[in-house]
Amino acid sequence: MFENTALVGALLEFEVALARAQARLGMIPEEAAEAITRAAVIGNFDVDSIVRDARESASIAIPLIKALKARSGSEYVHWGSTSQDAIDTAIALLLDRAQEAMRIDHVRLEQSLKGLSEAHANTVMLGRTLMQPAAPITFGYKVAGWYGAVHRGWFRTWPAFRAAVRVQFGGAVGTLASYGNRGEELARAISRELHLPTANAPSHAHRDRLAALIATYGIYVGSLGKIARDLVLLMQHEVGEVSAPGGESSAMPHKRNPVGCVHALAAATRMPGLVATYLNAMVQEHERAAGGWQAEWQTMGDAVNATASALAGVTDTIGALTVHPERMRANLDALKGVIDTEKLGAVEELRQRLMEEDD
Amino acid sequence: MFENTALVGALLEFEVALARAQARLGMIPEEAAEAITRAAVIGNFDVDSIVRDARESASIAIPLIKALKARSGSEYVHWGSTSQDAIDTAIALLLDRAQEAMRIDHVRLEQSLKGLSEAHANTVMLGRTLMQPAAPITFGYKVAGWYGAVHRGWFRTWPAFRAAVRVQFGGAVGTLASYGNRGEELARAISRELHLPTANAPSHAHRDRLAALIATYGIYVGSLGKIARDLVLLMQHEVGEVSAPGGESSAMPHKRNPVGCVHALAAATRMPGLVATYLNAMVQEHERAAGGWQAEWQTMGDAVNATASALAGVTDTIGALTVHPERMRANLDALKGVIDTEKLGAVEELRQRLMEEDD
Amino acid sequence: MFENTALVGALLEFEVALARAQARLGMIPEEAAEAITRAAVIGNFDVDSIVRDARESASIAIPLIKALKARSGSEYVHWGSTSQDAIDTAIALLLDRAQEAMRIDHVRLEQSLKGLSEAHANTVMLGRTLMQPAAPITFGYKVAGWYGAVHRGWFRTWPAFRAAVRVQFGGAVGTLASYGNRGEELARAISRELHLPTANAPSHAHRDRLAALIATYGIYVGSLGKIARDLVLLMQHEVGEVSAPGGESSAMPHKRNPVGCVHALAAATRMPGLVATYLNAMVQEHERAAGGWQAEWQTMGDAVNATASALAGVTDTIGALTVHPERMRANLDALKGVIDTEKLGAVEELRQRLMEEDD
Amino acid sequence: MFENTALVGALLEFEVALARAQARLGMIPEEAAEAITRAAVIGNFDVDSIVRDARESASIAIPLIKALKARSGSEYVHWGSTSQDAIDTAIALLLDRAQEAMRIDHVRLEQSLKGLSEAHANTVMLGRTLMQPAAPITFGYKVAGWYGAVHRGWFRTWPAFRAAVRVQFGGAVGTLASYGNRGEELARAISRELHLPTANAPSHAHRDRLAALIATYGIYVGSLGKIARDLVLLMQHEVGEVSAPGGESSAMPHKRNPVGCVHALAAATRMPGLVATYLNAMVQEHERAAGGWQAEWQTMGDAVNATASALAGVTDTIGALTVHPERMRANLDALKGVIDTEKLGAVEELRQRLMEEDD
Repeated sequence: MFENTALVGALLEFEVALARAQARLGMIPEEAAEAITRAAVIGNFDVDSIVRDARESASIAIPLIKALKARSGSEYVHWGSTSQDAIDTAIALLLDRAQEAMRIDHVRLEQSLKGLSEAHANTVMLGRTLMQPAAPITFGYKVAGWYGAVHRGWFRTWPAFRAAVRVQFGGAVGTLASYGNRGEELARAISRELHLPTANAPSHAHRDRLAALIATYGIYVGSLGKIARDLVLLMQHEVGEVSAPGGESSAMPHKRNPVGCVHALAAATRMPGLVATYLNAMVQEHERAAGGWQAEWQTMGDAVNATASALAGVTDTIGALTVHPERMRANLDALKGVIDTEKLGAVEELRQRLMEEDD
Repeated sequence: MFENTALVGALLEFEVALARAQARLGMIPEEAAEAITRAAVIGNFDVDSIVRDARESASIAIPLIKALKARSGSEYVHWGSTSQDAIDTAIALLLDRAQEAMRIDHVRLEQSLKGLSEAHANTVMLGRTLMQPAAPITFGYKVAGWYGAVHRGWFRTWPAFRAAVRVQFGGAVGTLASYGNRGEELARAISRELHLPTANAPSHAHRDRLAALIATYGIYVGSLGKIARDLVLLMQHEVGEVSAPGGESSAMPHKRNPVGCVHALAAATRMPGLVATYLNAMVQEHERAAGGWQAEWQTMGDAVNATASALAGVTDTIGALTVHPERMRANLDALKGVIDTEKLGAVEELRQRLMEEDD
Repeated sequence: MFENTALVGALLEFEVALARAQARLGMIPEEAAEAITRAAVIGNFDVDSIVRDARESASIAIPLIKALKARSGSEYVHWGSTSQDAIDTAIALLLDRAQEAMRIDHVRLEQSLKGLSEAHANTVMLGRTLMQPAAPITFGYKVAGWYGAVHRGWFRTWPAFRAAVRVQFGGAVGTLASYGNRGEELARAISRELHLPTANAPSHAHRDRLAALIATYGIYVGSLGKIARDLVLLMQHEVGEVSAPGGESSAMPHKRNPVGCVHALAAATRMPGLVATYLNAMVQEHERAAGGWQAEWQTMGDAVNATASALAGVTDTIGALTVHPERMRANLDALKGVIDTEKLGAVEELRQRLMEEDD
Repeated sequence: MFENTALVGALLEFEVALARAQARLGMIPEEAAEAITRAAVIGNFDVDSIVRDARESASIAIPLIKALKARSGSEYVHWGSTSQDAIDTAIALLLDRAQEAMRIDHVRLEQSLKGLSEAHANTVMLGRTLMQPAAPITFGYKVAGWYGAVHRGWFRTWPAFRAAVRVQFGGAVGTLASYGNRGEELARAISRELHLPTANAPSHAHRDRLAALIATYGIYVGSLGKIARDLVLLMQHEVGEVSAPGGESSAMPHKRNPVGCVHALAAATRMPGLVATYLNAMVQEHERAAGGWQAEWQTMGDAVNATASALAGVTDTIGALTVHPERMRANLDALKGVIDTEKLGAVEELRQRLMEEDD
């Protein structure tokens, strides 16, 4: 979702919105905005060479603006603005789309988990602690735990998303000095063009809102990883309590690899480091950082891509899951005499409560 | 705040609350609860040897319970409960106290920042981007940015805190099977004893709520680190725009080291790794993890201690800060002819908006 | 360096080497190897669609092998091999080239630093500790410290590189079972084809050698980041002790941004998280991991790209650095009376020793 | 190993060595050195209050030096030295002891693994990839993979250890300016007192050698974690291929928890974040950092303690391991018809090669 082409496309959207808003407010000629709008089509730009040239200035906005000026013939491109306004807003646009795309998968995941938990409310199985047999639970309760975690996890992303995904607009040092007393009016106009809210003030060097968003993704992926870990354990040949259609192996035609879980576990392996990088990057100098801000771009893209991959992997796996209650029963019964295989406690009451939980 | 002695003390509080709640509900004899309560005094226990013995079982609760049984002469210690219920609840108690202690510092920090921002609403200074001179801002605006970040940052900890800091009570596999149909009643009674809310269901292997809390601390420390970075930069001898009483140097009597900022920057260096560890640890197996859960304890303690240290460091420094407006003016005026040193844009309006912000 | 196209290209090299080695040993027909070699040209493959299809199997080798079979018309593609052999060897090939490319920059960096240190052996400047004035040093000594760190840092990559950058060849579970008793002979033949040494045994699930390599890159980048941090501090307008040509700003034509240092500091912000991910990923299950191995690919690519970027950034900056001894003297003299500005101790002896150090 | 008491004790050793070396060279009176030596006994100091007072200066050396001056009545304590010389050298002393303690466990681990691999050279079992049945291997080969990884891993610590574990001696800014032209002579004398080599030059702000050491510990723990992961998977009740005496459960008397593996997995969860912190901390300013250096102390201590804990956990488990070849055979035979359960390839040859490997 966060490929270079998507980023350049979103940067163009920002530049068009800026020009159109400025034209509407009479800050630049109407024809300039039209020329910029006409020129700002992703197909007009060589993304690879823009990425390459970005190295010179440590800002992908600078070569793109140069190219957009050349292509549109207008000197009003990016008028009075700063690289960070363009890049931060472009990333907000990408985040907006990513969140929507993930929302669709998440809804599907919640529905599958709900159905699965209901269907197996009475499917008794072995509860395991420290990787050893412990005492009986139900598969419905286990799934309810998964449901509760991803339900809370996704819910947690929303306030973070709403606070973080906004137009950035502050100019060189966040004072909107290029626009006299019309900066705020212009910010609102850009906001309308992009259908993206503005912040109450620029936050060029205060990155807590974005850090909070990436952290909620990290936590969500942690819970997806926990589900995937449970699934691959239950799918082991010797355990055999669930199964799912798998991916091919290049060496062993008989194998069905748990590919969806692999994606989730790989993402869960990567997210802690990506979140850590974002937190690292928060210690930014003065009004714009030398290094911290620039470390964010790829990190955010990687994190969103990993989150979407984990979510799709678990959603696909859960959606196609076959449960084997007879194996669950057999694995439990093998422990008769060691543990009380009938003592289920409040499992059903707790299961129901998890399925209803809201925070 | 999270030393071993504090942890053992909090474990004892859990065991007392459990016994008293069980006695109240007639599950164990009243005298047992009394004996346990009498025995459960931190001074009765050799914390170091309990910590050492914890290695045998990978659970600090187990040697403590043994010692408490011996000391109280009661077999009803920890009756029907599980190590994780004790340890998770003990950590919740410590978190509850840490949050309150930090709240006091945070209030002081907000007040200092507000006063500083108001007082310097018209103190013009150089805005700097990528560590180079950029354009003028006011010191009041800079401080307002700091204020906004820590205000949001602290605010962000609260919902995470409320969701995470709860009694854990689930028994061996989270089904409350030891307590027949009275598990929930008992959980509520423990909750009343400890003045700590219960969760709607146990979460032995779903750690998202605690991960969310530590992440909000990490983000908060990131913002404190950003303030500290700005301060040490402004305190440089050649810049000289602010100063504060400092710490001693063992080699150079003339020096005043920016100790408060050093604590904050050290904490900001450590928090990303600590948060990453917590996220790592989320991929927990089945009903209780073999490794993930056990990685949490010291990590949470280190993270809370680092957060408190960063907060105290910045609060002390801001509280004792001397601002040098004449140096700010001089550093700005040195750039006359290169930048327009008078163009302040919407700085005051934006400053006020930051001081009022609420999310 | 580690783009998708490069990875697919390296996978093709592995498949060609495998086929040619097998043909030479009479395991597959000569014409099959020829057909595979002819078909295995990067231009014949749609890299984007291979990357997309890789999601199905969590292995980029599988869709590529399918496409190569179709394109070559040969069923002998990848004969008896496994995805991990192809992918691990492809990454080794990319690492081999990256190390060579970085070596060239590193040599340039060492030479610049040596020259700079010699030239300024007697340029006295302020030594600073905890961001405060401390006591005099020479710029030559400061540069010698930088030199020592990157010299040791680069040197440290070599044993790690030699151990890690090898042909991986083990088949499905690392026993070379598909090749009867000719597995080792085949491994040696592939090694000759690729001019890449073999390991003494496959290491599908033991990733310590690669982890050690990425760790040495992380340490090297840490030292490059330290140099960049020192440079941006010395380049501050108020300090002014060094300067370098800079990058453009989109908002402020007067500015010269320290772009090379920004690249290094951004990389130094990212490497800790990337190294952490690699270490995380080491806990791999049985003979091939479900998640851990798959988390490595992008992480290694990101890490190598970040290392190369940091190195180029610092090398360019040092190569173009202007030193301002008069500002160094002035900043030091401003502290006369507070510190003894003449007491240089063993600075020159220590400088020379750093320039000669070998470990 | 790295408790506060141990650190204060090591700081005292440094101060004694400094005083005795200075007395020997005639820099301070012999009686001063004697008084310091007599006073510098750990029992004379209140470690908790020193740790508490360290907050004022962000340096544990400063309150200790004050207390040692008071206790010894000598003003020659720490004469001409700097906090970092004391702290860095104290940490080197602790590292020296920790490495030796771990060496003993490591030797035991290697011997157990060698014996286990030899004994099971012909014990056929299922090889598993992506958590699914793949093809047969031998248990001896699996253990040889473990052996190879920890053998390389421990071997890798040595050059890093030798480079890092040295006397730090540079004075205020690393120029030894307090000691005129006798700094080096003094450094050598301290080195002899402490039986610890000196570095060729101070490295107050260049932390690559320590970072390299902690990274090798991180990699070693990654390999120990991989072994522990394999073990807990093999110990699952349904798999049952190995078993070991376990730890108690507070809720379930029948359980034997795989405590040694839990310690290793907890450590493997924590090390990536700890190594990341160390790498983060490398970007240190000028001649001594404000934050980076101070972030190192607890991180190094935590890392060493975690490494020792992982090593002891795996060593104990391997040393007490019972192998169940009949279960291995049964689990493999259950797949007859799906996989060729007899095709072992070069497994024995590769096993032997792993047991002999040296890099």
